Amino acid sequence: SRSINLAVVPGDGIGQEVVAQGLKVLAAVLPQDVKLETKEYDLGAQRWHRTGETLPDAELDSLKSHDAILLGAIGDPSVPSGVLERGLLLKLRFAFDHYVNLRPSKLFPNTATPLAGRPDIDFVVVREGTEGPYTGNGGSLRTGTPAEVATEVSLNTAYGVERVVRDAYERANSRPRKKLTLVHKNNVLVYAGHMWKNIFDRVGQEYPEVTTDYLHVDAATIFFVTQPERFDVIVTDNLFGDILTDLAAAVTGGIGLAASGNINPTGEFPSMFEPVHGSAPDIAGTGKADPTATVLSVALLLRHLGYESEAVRIEDTVAADLAERTPDTVRTTDEIGDALAVRVAS
Amino acid sequence: SRSINLAVVPGDGIGQEVVAQGLKVLAAVLPQDVKLETKEYDLGAQRWHRTGETLPDAELDSLKSHDAILLGAIGDPSVPSGVLERGLLLKLRFAFDHYVNLRPSKLFPNTATPLAGRPDIDFVVVREGTEGPYTGNGGSLRTGTPAEVATEVSLNTAYGVERVVRDAYERANSRPRKKLTLVHKNNVLVYAGHMWKNIFDRVGQEYPEVTTDYLHVDAATIFFVTQPERFDVIVTDNLFGDILTDLAAAVTGGIGLAASGNINPTGEFPSMFEPVHGSAPDIAGTGKADPTATVLSVALLLRHLGYESEAVRIEDTVAADLAERTPDTVRTTDEIGDALAVRVAS
Ligand SMILES: CC(C)[C@H](C(=O)O)[C@@H](O)C(=O)O
Ligand SMILES: CC(C)[C@H](C(=O)O)[C@@H](O)C(=O)O
Repeated sequence: SRSINLAVVPGDGIGQEVVAQGLKVLAAVLPQDVKLETKEYDLGAQRWHRTGETLPDAELDSLKSHDAILLGAIGDPSVPSGVLERGLLLKLRFAFDHYVNLRPSKLFPNTATPLAGRPDIDFVVVREGTEGPYTGNGGSLRTGTPAEVATEVSLNTAYGVERVVRDAYERANSRPRKKLTLVHKNNVLVYAGHMWKNIFDRVGQEYPEVTTDYLHVDAATIFFVTQPERFDVIVTDNLFGDILTDLAAAVTGGIGLAASGNINPTGEFPSMFEPVHGSAPDIAGTGKADPTATVLSVALLLRHLGYESEAVRIEDTVAADLAERTPDTVRTTDEIGDALAVRVAS
Repeated sequence: SRSINLAVVPGDGIGQEVVAQGLKVLAAVLPQDVKLETKEYDLGAQRWHRTGETLPDAELDSLKSHDAILLGAIGDPSVPSGVLERGLLLKLRFAFDHYVNLRPSKLFPNTATPLAGRPDIDFVVVREGTEGPYTGNGGSLRTGTPAEVATEVSLNTAYGVERVVRDAYERANSRPRKKLTLVHKNNVLVYAGHMWKNIFDRVGQEYPEVTTDYLHVDAATIFFVTQPERFDVIVTDNLFGDILTDLAAAVTGGIGLAASGNINPTGEFPSMFEPVHGSAPDIAGTGKADPTATVLSVALLLRHLGYESEAVRIEDTVAADLAERTPDTVRTTDEIGDALAVRVAS
């Protein structure tokens, strides 16, 4: 008999509330014969305030034993900026070698977009997750004085770039449009940029059916709002991917809908699924958070674990739910979760 | 009697065509008693192909003697990416200490925006111009092999950050809404990000009337499309500013309208004014380029040199011209330049 041994990290703010809905829908969609075990990890701002810990080794070890991780949101204004991000969220992404940070962007029918003309948006960003300016490399000298110097070092390896680029080609190759766009800034960041571009071109020779394109990151933001339908799969570095996927979320109905997977494709470590949005402390506890991004992240989780038809059922359920929403629809986090759970089970 | 001794660098692609219109309007707006001298510099792709030079010391020296520089666009696909950008455009910005890269964003009435609802957009980005990931610091080891490692180093100094932050506060303080937003990514780029934030907070104490705000760069892109009216003055680093100003241009009618000034506020070196758009080789020579961004850059140039009323006249002229455009209006680069020159003189 099959089983899923899931680690749950609700985290901060609305994290708790949206994760609860994600689990509700997960339980509702899973076939009877699949045994779902979950273990909750108390990590985030409260834990840090209580113990000063962000992610102790024992818990990192324990997390390793799960099939996958579902994460809500990390971060709170009461904690200095960077402490939880670096010490918990990014630590997980790096420790578990989540080199594919997968972020699909789709404008569902009937959802609001700030773009006039409702373009046809359906692309996926493959964001590198373990290198670039996110490595924590850098430092500050004479901190806080007028003579301070601070550096941030973007580290990029052929090893790291090739594997994520290859993953992106595979994804592009399996989609109907078979188009892959590399986004970087190789006219300024010439060292990393040329390495990315060279590897992108070289690996591309193995995928003759994939049409390729290159855009500087600044130009890419223009096309995100003027011509988003031109994109199919995008591959880009960690920081550019961070920026572009928030913008992508904004033009496809907001971060209330944007799902993501931090994937370790080799399966050596558990992959982690989380909504793109943050902990939104301003609306935490009010029931205003939309759990849809978390529910869609659960679909990515299921797909990753091989439950393709269940993943599709969640996605169809979300699409159907969105199609019925009107500007007057007001539902709590819990009510949306209930509605999705009922619909997905039927 | 007054005089302007202007260096003109038309550069590549449409650069030639749009600069010609900028000069036309400049000549038309200047009072009779101001003597305009221009000297053209042959720099860019053709020069590089001919001589292998991007910006020889002699020309850099000669450029120094001008009151200001008007630049068209730099870059051509026939030149390896980065050669002209680093060797010419960025070299000028760095050599002439253009630490304020000023990029106003305004949605003029009657201009097309991809945003539904036509929000009220009128903000200015103060982009740092001499530090950050643009310093060319970094390198590549074992280039082209599977063991390659490439780095890009973002260099930030309290000296460099404080002066641009102060400039941004001054600008915010002189605008009706008096609002300044710092954009960075201090939850990940903790060294540079915290230095920026600390300096931003400290300098802010000298400007009690300025309301301040902080946004991560990813979140900022969301607000650029969902709530751009919230911005008044934005201060940010070199790379974030590059990305955000292309997005800003896109939501305010396109890069055909976006002007910029690379300003050395101390006056030690000439400031340089250029449209945000590139050389657009695909439409070069077709007469399709809109010279408006260059003409608006001439307005910034005049303001910098103390010709405030002439700057305003150009801006009003552009607004009037845009107000008269209809979707059927088809004019060549030259015709738009002529129309603006006639109108500004009348
Ligand atoms: C919270 C932050 C560290 C994180 C990131 O920058 O990756 C977030 O913005 C995201 O996109 O998942
Ligand atoms: C051409 C390029 C080097 C330049 C930059 O990145 O600054 C351009 O994009 C700009 O914004 O002026």
